[in-house]
Amino acid sequence: MESFDLALLEEVWSEQDFQDLRQKLLPTYPAAHYFRSGIIGSGLCVFSKHPIQEFTQHVFTLNGYPYMIHHGDWFCGKAVGLLVLHLSGLVLNAYVTHLHAEYNRQKDVYLAHRVAQAWELAQFIHHTSKKADMVLMCGDLNLHPKDLGCRLLKEWTGLCDAYLETRDFKGSEEGCTMVPENCYVNRRELEQFPLGIRIDYVLYKAVSGLYISCKTFKTTTGRDPHSGTPLSDHEALMATLCVRHSPPQHTSNPSHGPAERSALISVLREAWTELDQGMAQALWWATIAGYVIGLGLLLLALLCALAVGGGIREVAILLWTPSVGLVLGAGAVYLFHVQEAKGLCRARAELQHVLGRAREAQDLSPESQPALQPGRQEGDRAEEQ
Amino acid sequence: MESFDLALLEEVWSEQDFQDLRQKLLPTYPAAHYFRSGIIGSGLCVFSKHPIQEFTQHVFTLNGYPYMIHHGDWFCGKAVGLLVLHLSGLVLNAYVTHLHAEYNRQKDVYLAHRVAQAWELAQFIHHTSKKADMVLMCGDLNLHPKDLGCRLLKEWTGLCDAYLETRDFKGSEEGCTMVPENCYVNRRELEQFPLGIRIDYVLYKAVSGLYISCKTFKTTTGRDPHSGTPLSDHEALMATLCVRHSPPQHTSNPSHGPAERSALISVLREAWTELDQGMAQALWWATIAGYVIGLGLLLLALLCALAVGGGIREVAILLWTPSVGLVLGAGAVYLFHVQEAKGLCRARAELQHVLGRAREAQDLSPESQPALQPGRQEGDRAEEQ
Repeated sequence: MESFDLALLEEVWSEQDFQDLRQKLLPTYPAAHYFRSGIIGSGLCVFSKHPIQEFTQHVFTLNGYPYMIHHGDWFCGKAVGLLVLHLSGLVLNAYVTHLHAEYNRQKDVYLAHRVAQAWELAQFIHHTSKKADMVLMCGDLNLHPKDLGCRLLKEWTGLCDAYLETRDFKGSEEGCTMVPENCYVNRRELEQFPLGIRIDYVLYKAVSGLYISCKTFKTTTGRDPHSGTPLSDHEALMATLCVRHSPPQHTSNPSHGPAERSALISVLREAWTELDQGMAQALWWATIAGYVIGLGLLLLALLCALAVGGGIREVAILLWTPSVGLVLGAGAVYLFHVQEAKGLCRARAELQHVLGRAREAQDLSPESQPALQPGRQEGDRAEEQ
Repeated sequence: MESFDLALLEEVWSEQDFQDLRQKLLPTYPAAHYFRSGIIGSGLCVFSKHPIQEFTQHVFTLNGYPYMIHHGDWFCGKAVGLLVLHLSGLVLNAYVTHLHAEYNRQKDVYLAHRVAQAWELAQFIHHTSKKADMVLMCGDLNLHPKDLGCRLLKEWTGLCDAYLETRDFKGSEEGCTMVPENCYVNRRELEQFPLGIRIDYVLYKAVSGLYISCKTFKTTTGRDPHSGTPLSDHEALMATLCVRHSPPQHTSNPSHGPAERSALISVLREAWTELDQGMAQALWWATIAGYVIGLGLLLLALLCALAVGGGIREVAILLWTPSVGLVLGAGAVYLFHVQEAKGLCRARAELQHVLGRAREAQDLSPESQPALQPGRQEGDRAEEQ
């Protein structure tokens, strides 16, 4: 009904739901795409008034644990989708994403994965948007504004937060997108945050020579204005962005000065530490699984001996099932955590490289050297490995 | 010893091997990177004389089957690695990759996966190289020059084949990279190809205004010139590329005419069919696995009844292990093939979109409409879904 240029949805788990939406929205949004991935699907889809020139997607390397079946994130294949649109002669790269959920903020076992996802998201945007005139990133980051992953994404891509930038905001208090007024929200989860939390975002940036401002920014407030029942457990975000040509000094990417560089260095360092701890944890689990495999094999050998030698034969046979299961299960856990460690190590290496180059740019005087511009081009540096 | 600007290796499975190589090559190649992924690793690494400005990687969504343990590709996490280098003021995007092996050319069960990988590779290059002045792609594609995946990659990215372009070639006959003279090559696998096969490539392209030519192209010929024993089962490729500024009419990307467009359409159509067949196959396996799960659950219920009711109690207990294994195994196979079908469907959707836009560009007269330029910008079209 609002007739936006672009509508980006998350958690549309059923492809049939997407098809139904598609049929209903066809008059207003002739173009649409559903991003398929994983076993359940990424849940991401888009509806556009304008023709979609190109699309592709990147599925995150790390996305929780398959044995956390009750959380289910691993089965979704969470991803970032990219759409390329041509609007009034300008190239817009629009990204839609959904990161791993946070189930326990006090003891978050998925923190390293979410940081790795935020990094992969930032890298995907960085490497695929180099020729775009405008970048738009919308999605459920499952990250509070001050959380490491959110800062990492903003600092490395140079994206601005529409909620913080707008002068005309209407909606839930502090722009929260999970609010206690919403009947689908578990209020106990929001005990620490009486107003709610802001974990869904509209971020944007433009190349030099263009200037984007957020004219209006609205959120729903926990209930559908028509039926009273909210349309989703998260509040919808609605932004009107205004793109203007600007003189070069009014660039919208405020990432030139030493202050921005040192903010980037600090967040990169923090993320490096988090990924490093995650890696140690992954290797610890792999080691434990290795021991369990050894133990299981010993147990199997013992059971074979008992079954052959008589004695407690029936018990020995009965114990076969759990022992074989133990060995196979521990084997799978071992392989999973080895792969997890490799994925975290990969993100850490990419991050360390960027960190090293940012430090070098900082060490050189700002007069003699062009500053590091996140999301654009950078200075020289041999690889850190 | 040859002191190239860039050396790109595949199948370096051990990170310790990479570290050893790194130490040895440090005087000539101060920059290096090892691309980590999957359980074993992507096997990809690079050594560079010039500082590496940026790097990232994309792990292929589909990469064979985990239960094909003897083939092992699934465990590698095959990928494409990207390096960004700045050479003489120009931006070079260098890609290194290794696609799924071909174990049986007559009955290739991995064909759809290799086509999907070739497509993902082409899309990754397409979306990440838009601002690069030069693109270089090196790797073991496990594809013969006329194979679908190879044609798809070349047509969609507009990359040129160094072996075909050079005027100064020295090396194995027909540029083959797996030759019967190599003592590590199984000659029975080359029965159909007495000269060998060409499955490793150096591909390149430049933006308009630049012109790349391949000055010299060499391969090893099955033995190390010093010790007689070859260094690898594949022959090494060595290319010297010459980059020149060129007047606009001499662009190196020959993808403007209707002939190139219809070649692209034909290869896209062929790939679409292959992915579609692969999807049907994946869904067939998922269905079979679904039936096996049902059967296994029935068997388990029967065994429970027998164990409780007495009779052949010991036999019933004995059969528990294989039944539980059957249900869990079939469950895993089911989930795997559902995910496989989603991955193939995703590639097919991306491909279909490009195909539709290429057809539209073809339908419009070449005079009234700028032609579709693979690897650059394209015309308008509403999404196909």
